[in-house]
Amino acid sequence: MDGNLAGSNLRINGDRLWESLMEMAKIGATEKGGNCRLALTDLDKDGRDLFVRWCKEAGCTIRVDKMGNIYARRAGKNDSLAPVMTGSHLDTQPTGGRFDGVLGVLAGLEVVRTLNDLNYETERPVEVLVWTNEEGSRFAPAMISSGVFAGAYDLEFGLSRKDQEGKTIGEELQRIGYAGEDPVGKEVHAFFELHIEQGPILEAEEKTIGVVTDAQGQRWYEVTITGQESHAGPTPMNRRRDALLGASRIVDLVNRIGLEHAPYACATVGMLNVYPNSRNVIPGQVFLTIDFRHPEDDVLTEMDRKLRAGIDEITGKIGLEQAVEDIFYYKPIHFDEDCIAAVRAATEELGYSHRDMVSGAGHDACYMSKVAPTSMVFVPCIDGISHNEVEDAKPEWVSAGTDVLLRAMIQRAGKAD
Amino acid sequence: MDGNLAGSNLRINGDRLWESLMEMAKIGATEKGGNCRLALTDLDKDGRDLFVRWCKEAGCTIRVDKMGNIYARRAGKNDSLAPVMTGSHLDTQPTGGRFDGVLGVLAGLEVVRTLNDLNYETERPVEVLVWTNEEGSRFAPAMISSGVFAGAYDLEFGLSRKDQEGKTIGEELQRIGYAGEDPVGKEVHAFFELHIEQGPILEAEEKTIGVVTDAQGQRWYEVTITGQESHAGPTPMNRRRDALLGASRIVDLVNRIGLEHAPYACATVGMLNVYPNSRNVIPGQVFLTIDFRHPEDDVLTEMDRKLRAGIDEITGKIGLEQAVEDIFYYKPIHFDEDCIAAVRAATEELGYSHRDMVSGAGHDACYMSKVAPTSMVFVPCIDGISHNEVEDAKPEWVSAGTDVLLRAMIQRAGKAD
Repeated sequence: MDGNLAGSNLRINGDRLWESLMEMAKIGATEKGGNCRLALTDLDKDGRDLFVRWCKEAGCTIRVDKMGNIYARRAGKNDSLAPVMTGSHLDTQPTGGRFDGVLGVLAGLEVVRTLNDLNYETERPVEVLVWTNEEGSRFAPAMISSGVFAGAYDLEFGLSRKDQEGKTIGEELQRIGYAGEDPVGKEVHAFFELHIEQGPILEAEEKTIGVVTDAQGQRWYEVTITGQESHAGPTPMNRRRDALLGASRIVDLVNRIGLEHAPYACATVGMLNVYPNSRNVIPGQVFLTIDFRHPEDDVLTEMDRKLRAGIDEITGKIGLEQAVEDIFYYKPIHFDEDCIAAVRAATEELGYSHRDMVSGAGHDACYMSKVAPTSMVFVPCIDGISHNEVEDAKPEWVSAGTDVLLRAMIQRAGKAD
Repeated sequence: MDGNLAGSNLRINGDRLWESLMEMAKIGATEKGGNCRLALTDLDKDGRDLFVRWCKEAGCTIRVDKMGNIYARRAGKNDSLAPVMTGSHLDTQPTGGRFDGVLGVLAGLEVVRTLNDLNYETERPVEVLVWTNEEGSRFAPAMISSGVFAGAYDLEFGLSRKDQEGKTIGEELQRIGYAGEDPVGKEVHAFFELHIEQGPILEAEEKTIGVVTDAQGQRWYEVTITGQESHAGPTPMNRRRDALLGASRIVDLVNRIGLEHAPYACATVGMLNVYPNSRNVIPGQVFLTIDFRHPEDDVLTEMDRKLRAGIDEITGKIGLEQAVEDIFYYKPIHFDEDCIAAVRAATEELGYSHRDMVSGAGHDACYMSKVAPTSMVFVPCIDGISHNEVEDAKPEWVSAGTDVLLRAMIQRAGKAD
């Protein structure tokens, strides 16, 4: 590898990057300043086409795999070596923002452009990747294509996912001209993903860079609490079996479990439906969902134990029935130590304030970590808001994150002798 | 008045009463064994016609007032005296039962039939009343016609109430032939209403008769709790402003306030809506309703104070905004001491097990208590269930309640010399 990475000229062009971000944001722009570019729509095709054009202009070769993932390649000196890759997604939520995903893609392009500017030859090839259907808004599940790449799903499953109108990913890839021929999956020397944090920590602590060491594991539950529907007037308090009272105590329990495993645990009841939901009827049944997250699987197991014991106690006391269903269990991920070290070193060389972070959300990098050395770089977003048209980030944050990405990629790709 | 009420022959004919109840229940019978006889529908007309026919067969004269309330009158010796009245309603909930309301009407008819059998002449006239639209299912508000009778609403308001298709009570009374000419409201010497309890207390304590001394006051609220909608993954526990956490603690608070004012207080959150109600989004807003009931107004005031203080504390702690709106305040009713005494004495003469009770639900008797000496008699219903097609009662309970009604009415109407 190379010892001269810290040269002051190793900086990306922040203005050019910002201009590209704003140009891409015109495709599917919403009135409120956000983006709606759902996977494999005409607008997604327009975004892909623009990306491909820019990459070709930057001298890259383009390949597309059978899941429609786009690989823009800048050759290395030793082009037979496995590439160092970076990337994210161009698809958005229906009321999404201008940075979620697209930043990670265009930062990769900016890395290539900067290497070109500097006439910098890497030992290994560098590739910038666009993953198909990361958001999962149009086709469930989310991160389907990195999932296929990592072997979590097979190709047939991926191509057969349907939108609400019954159109499949495979059909829509054909329609927009992005059904490629390449196999999905190959040897990768390292993978980096730059992303906005989608949470409030970096901005609140005035840190520019999040060195992402882990991604939280997730356990999701559906809980149904059943009591006795009865009249709010003639039914004395001590004879009630109020399902909402039990459910409310479960909400408090979930919050308490989260706090007991601070600072990394997240514990949320996001959905709660009351039956019959009438002003003067004691609720007979409540359905609620629980979302537990933590970077350590042992802690998730302990949270699970506390949840079940707590629900037993709460429902037993009121005389309620319970049904607790595990619906999703995604184990925590620890990213690759060398990749983390490359990000941290780059951040320190550049003098950016930083902190280690755990990703609370899922990203394509989570799947990639199963098959390649992987880590992530986070930059702040305004008020921690994402999946929202008001999603925003400052140009200096975006530049700083891309500076870090550039150096981390060079560190892993090596300077050609 | 008369000192010889305790004669063993002063009993109603339980078989005849039960037969009439079951005959009436055929009109609007539902598959699950309940009744659907919505106010002023063709089925309500059929029920009214049957009642009127039976009353005429029992020698009564029939008058109908401008709200469609039916008065079936058995003359007294001194027929110019104000009548002793009893009655309830023939309309039902959409999935109602065979006893709610109709028992109180047909028990009145059975009192008349029994007086006829015994050739018993009362000093005052006796009237059996059918109130229009007690349930409020088709036309809101509930108890509209006794409300007009008592002066809580004016006649024009009552007649102009609309159903969901825009048809008014006045139009529908004309259509089914029950738009009468009599004024709504007159002098009443005493009013009694027999009703199923619609709660579980009598059956659980194995008591046959509830001597109803009071009706609970009610205070209803709408509460909106606002926090910060954010992602369940990347948002640490200590940075959350979770509206559902606050709302859940309010549910627990409401329950605690109810228990603190046992045994009479009822405190219920019946409706609760979460926004955006998504599995992995921390709820930004929750709307909920509160229903407080107690027979003493001072206690309702104290419950109100505790509620507001509690909500302040809960929302302050989490950093939530609150909006608490009073939407309904109905003061408690204490029924007439003489009428209560008449019911209690009759119950004791007959040797039925009994207890004093507070009505948790609203009844026409509540409005009548504003303009006439009034009280109520409760009998158990199976499992305390009402407003439900499985609503049920045992024939012996129904007979016992009507026995009590007979004696209480005679006590107030007087035996002719």
